Amino acid sequence: MGDIFDGTGCVWRDKYIAVDWGTTNRRAWLVDRNGTTVDRFADHLGLMTVSPGGFDKAAADIRLKLGDHPMLLAGMVGSDKGWRNVPYVPVPADLPSLAAAILWIDARTGIIPGICQTGSCPDVMRGEEMQALGALANGDAAPDALVCHPGTHAKWIRLQHSKITQFSTMMTGEIFSLIRDHSILAAQLADEVTDGASFEAGLQEACNGASLLSSLFAIRARKLLRQKPSANASFASGLLIGSDVHTGLSNARPGEMVAIIGRSDLSQLYASAIRKAGFDHKIIDGDKSFLSGIGSITQILEPQ
Amino acid sequence: MGDIFDGTGCVWRDKYIAVDWGTTNRRAWLVDRNGTTVDRFADHLGLMTVSPGGFDKAAADIRLKLGDHPMLLAGMVGSDKGWRNVPYVPVPADLPSLAAAILWIDARTGIIPGICQTGSCPDVMRGEEMQALGALANGDAAPDALVCHPGTHAKWIRLQHSKITQFSTMMTGEIFSLIRDHSILAAQLADEVTDGASFEAGLQEACNGASLLSSLFAIRARKLLRQKPSANASFASGLLIGSDVHTGLSNARPGEMVAIIGRSDLSQLYASAIRKAGFDHKIIDGDKSFLSGIGSITQILEPQ
Repeated sequence: MGDIFDGTGCVWRDKYIAVDWGTTNRRAWLVDRNGTTVDRFADHLGLMTVSPGGFDKAAADIRLKLGDHPMLLAGMVGSDKGWRNVPYVPVPADLPSLAAAILWIDARTGIIPGICQTGSCPDVMRGEEMQALGALANGDAAPDALVCHPGTHAKWIRLQHSKITQFSTMMTGEIFSLIRDHSILAAQLADEVTDGASFEAGLQEACNGASLLSSLFAIRARKLLRQKPSANASFASGLLIGSDVHTGLSNARPGEMVAIIGRSDLSQLYASAIRKAGFDHKIIDGDKSFLSGIGSITQILEPQ
Repeated sequence: MGDIFDGTGCVWRDKYIAVDWGTTNRRAWLVDRNGTTVDRFADHLGLMTVSPGGFDKAAADIRLKLGDHPMLLAGMVGSDKGWRNVPYVPVPADLPSLAAAILWIDARTGIIPGICQTGSCPDVMRGEEMQALGALANGDAAPDALVCHPGTHAKWIRLQHSKITQFSTMMTGEIFSLIRDHSILAAQLADEVTDGASFEAGLQEACNGASLLSSLFAIRARKLLRQKPSANASFASGLLIGSDVHTGLSNARPGEMVAIIGRSDLSQLYASAIRKAGFDHKIIDGDKSFLSGIGSITQILEPQ
């Protein structure tokens, strides 16, 4: 199965289903010929809840909910933990190169690959590329934009001449979770992260080039020294996001505007960090970008 | 109880017991009038195994094993999780200032405090200061040495005019454990850490100023891209220790020799990192340093 189809025998311009299927969540949209979403749903049936061999049925369920239409899927569903392990497309990558490398489950069901970077900075991505290239396709991002995609594994994506030419993953969100859930600091990190004075103090410290390894321990020292309570989770988040943004912006051009695509709470925190570092930013809607990317691919598959 | 004694009514020059009591381990030595260890034991009865209210008995057990002698204790036993929470002595600190601040459980049982640093770089330490000041007392460390103490929470200690004037804690060992035990990289970090090519590659990357947040993710990318297997735990350790040493050495004077005191496996890895960064080092025995520190304090308590 797979690879004996190429998706060209299928009509995309009537209605199609777009699916962003990740590790913990699944979101699906039914899109009509005008690019308008006419139905949609989201649930928590991410990869982790699907047993091996269970993807055919899980995907059929999507059609039961949204109708029996052609379907394109992107995200971790194309990983070694997903429906099929779809080989990565190497950078430089754009929507046509992704479309050409779709893995077809059948003539009307395709999984769009992620992209990779080999050489001295090996890196991989599945899902964020669709948002970045979709934002490019609908004009929200410029052909040479620097895109920041906050998250568990944050991505900094360089667009050049309308292709993704380089990207870098930061384990910012995961390291924050590890520290909050499992470290000696855990009990001091119960506050909700907000963009206030403590977050800014963390940003400032990261911006001054302080070492994460030592700055984090100050949270424990302040407690033991009975210094006045601080919003420590916000401080730690500021340290980590500040360090992330400091590195990410090292690829920015002077005065460049950074395009932020991601969860709205995280996007606001990253926006604050990017502003503090002296750069402008633009927050771009992730769902709109994703749907623009998928829509562009249907037009590549079936030129009007 | 406590503080109504001052330890001066007690004969230290016959024999005494020195105890290094940490969170997970306890080590005790019986030392004679010549400073020679005549008996000793080590066990895993660290603080975590002692129930609240159980320290009197746990300490009495030490005397059952080594004899009914005066006893000085140092390390986490003086923390909020220990026998008594002994207030920190602020920097600049030396053995006389620690001796003056001992908390006396009774006339012949004293807990030596740790030290703290307040101000813009709050930090605390309990145990490592005794080794650093002991190495200074016996001549292994110079009066103005930079001491590196590898560990779960690594310490970089500046000695100046025979006092600890400044120090910094790095969460290097703990972050390594979190990543190895709980992160998405865990399955790739099963190799034993050794000072080979992968460790050096990690050092080199840290030395080039790479971000920990992004360099760590390369371990996952290499796996997904099926690049040849690497000793990933050694690489991750090299990244973390390299970052730690890079920051620690920012306080070094040009050409200064770094005194390393700590577990022998970690000391070798730090030595390698320090050498690669262009600095000389000297590895100093931690037990000998600890006993020199305690011995010096007995002489302060009972001048000859």
